[in-house]
Amino acid sequence: MDYETPQFFRVMQYANAADRDVVDMVSGNPDWEPPEALREGLHTYADGEPDEFQYPPSVGLRALREEIATRRGVGTEQVIVTNGAGEANHLAMAEGLEAMPGSEILLVDPVYPYYAGRAGLLGAETNFVPASESGHLDPEAVRERASEQTSVIVINSPNNPLGVTYDGETIRELVAIAEANDALLVSDEVYDHFDYTGRFESALSVGSDHRVVTNSFSKSMAITGWRVGYAIFPHPDGPQGELIDRARTRHMLTNVTGSRPVQAAVLHALENTEPSYYEQNRDLLRKRIATFTDALDDAGAEYTEPEGAFYVMAKFPDFAGTLENVKLLIDEAGVAGMPGEAFSDSRADWIRFALVTPRVEGAASRLAELFE
Amino acid sequence: MDYETPQFFRVMQYANAADRDVVDMVSGNPDWEPPEALREGLHTYADGEPDEFQYPPSVGLRALREEIATRRGVGTEQVIVTNGAGEANHLAMAEGLEAMPGSEILLVDPVYPYYAGRAGLLGAETNFVPASESGHLDPEAVRERASEQTSVIVINSPNNPLGVTYDGETIRELVAIAEANDALLVSDEVYDHFDYTGRFESALSVGSDHRVVTNSFSKSMAITGWRVGYAIFPHPDGPQGELIDRARTRHMLTNVTGSRPVQAAVLHALENTEPSYYEQNRDLLRKRIATFTDALDDAGAEYTEPEGAFYVMAKFPDFAGTLENVKLLIDEAGVAGMPGEAFSDSRADWIRFALVTPRVEGAASRLAELFE
Repeated sequence: MDYETPQFFRVMQYANAADRDVVDMVSGNPDWEPPEALREGLHTYADGEPDEFQYPPSVGLRALREEIATRRGVGTEQVIVTNGAGEANHLAMAEGLEAMPGSEILLVDPVYPYYAGRAGLLGAETNFVPASESGHLDPEAVRERASEQTSVIVINSPNNPLGVTYDGETIRELVAIAEANDALLVSDEVYDHFDYTGRFESALSVGSDHRVVTNSFSKSMAITGWRVGYAIFPHPDGPQGELIDRARTRHMLTNVTGSRPVQAAVLHALENTEPSYYEQNRDLLRKRIATFTDALDDAGAEYTEPEGAFYVMAKFPDFAGTLENVKLLIDEAGVAGMPGEAFSDSRADWIRFALVTPRVEGAASRLAELFE
Repeated sequence: MDYETPQFFRVMQYANAADRDVVDMVSGNPDWEPPEALREGLHTYADGEPDEFQYPPSVGLRALREEIATRRGVGTEQVIVTNGAGEANHLAMAEGLEAMPGSEILLVDPVYPYYAGRAGLLGAETNFVPASESGHLDPEAVRERASEQTSVIVINSPNNPLGVTYDGETIRELVAIAEANDALLVSDEVYDHFDYTGRFESALSVGSDHRVVTNSFSKSMAITGWRVGYAIFPHPDGPQGELIDRARTRHMLTNVTGSRPVQAAVLHALENTEPSYYEQNRDLLRKRIATFTDALDDAGAEYTEPEGAFYVMAKFPDFAGTLENVKLLIDEAGVAGMPGEAFSDSRADWIRFALVTPRVEGAASRLAELFE
């Protein structure tokens, strides 16, 4: 499978060129309002003094790192502010691969394509652990695949594309597997504000020098284009302290630093946004999930029970998740999803739908009608 | 020399902790106003619709790429918008090293430390060509050092730290040397708006598939912390077309994309800023240069004649440019510069002063007094 050129763009191009109205359920871009304080924060910044427009520290504004550290219960010296979770994952994967023995990165199938592409860029071998039938990750399956060849294990919970949330026991076992194989667990938690089960547990809850947690404000504040993320590394004074030292250097030599206006605005939003903002967005998605899965039931589709993130992965009767069929759905039903083959060989028959459109209900009816 | 941990921070820390008033002539952060339209652009963006807060294309906003392409007289398909010139240089150096034969990166001594650090990160060998006594780069010296081992040649004109501007003939010869050795010339032109001689010529003026031009708005718009830069690669349909394809992939897998608010604001500023804005800033720096070099004359210092950028590199009689002596200047004169040893073995006796402070005149008097 070619993970280097994500199919997102190809599907979107086809949908945009279609001869009819199409509901975009392809990309993971939130369609709701950012926190009001975020807009305020950017306005305030825009009126600042010239010296506020100059280089922030390479690792990010001190006050933002402190705010993140306090919220996550870690030391400020463990935090690097990055150009979105994308760069955070890049740093963690690159340094894990360099510092840990072995040359293999272990990923879950189906996989968020950037993880696989990045492993290729870094010259790592990849090893895929299939998700269980329910969409969860069985630690036993990971244990079987992991070996002294494993440098890095990348997980994502709540999960894209399956929409499941791993439980605390799974997270603890995954950390233990990383430790047992002298590997680094990279836990990408960008959907942590979108758990509908109460089951979500951060890998930070497990004390270990064998895990890096990555995150961003792209999803929680509805700003995927702003690029403010972070990585939390093992403590610099601990046995894996070299990891963050090297990641700081890589970050500096790749990007110098992240963009300061957006860091300032995100800090202001963190300080001035009520929990109700996040709760509202979760409620909105809960409703969309109910509407959409009802329609899937009507269409006789199989699907992974949505527990987190924005996605539902579904399989229609006798209808494989190929790019061809996804194009057919665009033309016949006016609904654009992502072909399962973009994420997986094992779930190539499935299609992923992103619930980040106000037109979920309309899309659901169209699909139910087509497959009735 | 350890290029991995720039000494900027160490010197700044010492200066900040000093027991007296210190004029900061260390960092290259402009101290003047950004274009008014830049602030406007950020305000307008902050009031935008939620969909404007989502992912821009990975290579940057289309309209910004078009604007850059028009101004630089290249095809839009040659432009990647990056997280500052830092990432642009990273992409160009990384892809040049991978695509071109050889494993060596040729740099100029004295060197902007990030180039050397980045070469180390990429696992390249480095080969340093000493600048001529006047601070210029003698193409003959480059020709002597270049070989089939050379993958990439990195130049910077107007130059940091020497403050010189290379002439068109030099640029043409450097492109020819890159071609003759099947290497890639990376021409970092971030100071192109700060040439005081009229001599500056972009490497774009030489038609070739063996050069990448990098730039940013950090200096020209006084926004080093915003991180909007770009790289102009050889045309994707030309003989080195693979370079930009690979750079796009590396950019996507490292950063996903750059930050959108700052791209939108820079585009607005490009469209709405008069040439007089840039002319004013050049005038300001011309005056500062005159004031500062007069004082250097009074102090009996040797210095490289400033022709571009923000810097003057000087050598005081019997006073080496070590970190120790720089600290002494902070304590005794209240002036903080950068030790020459941070840039060079050959100019380790020199000190670099950045003229991006309104207090150039005061600093000049203090230095003249100390060395009188």
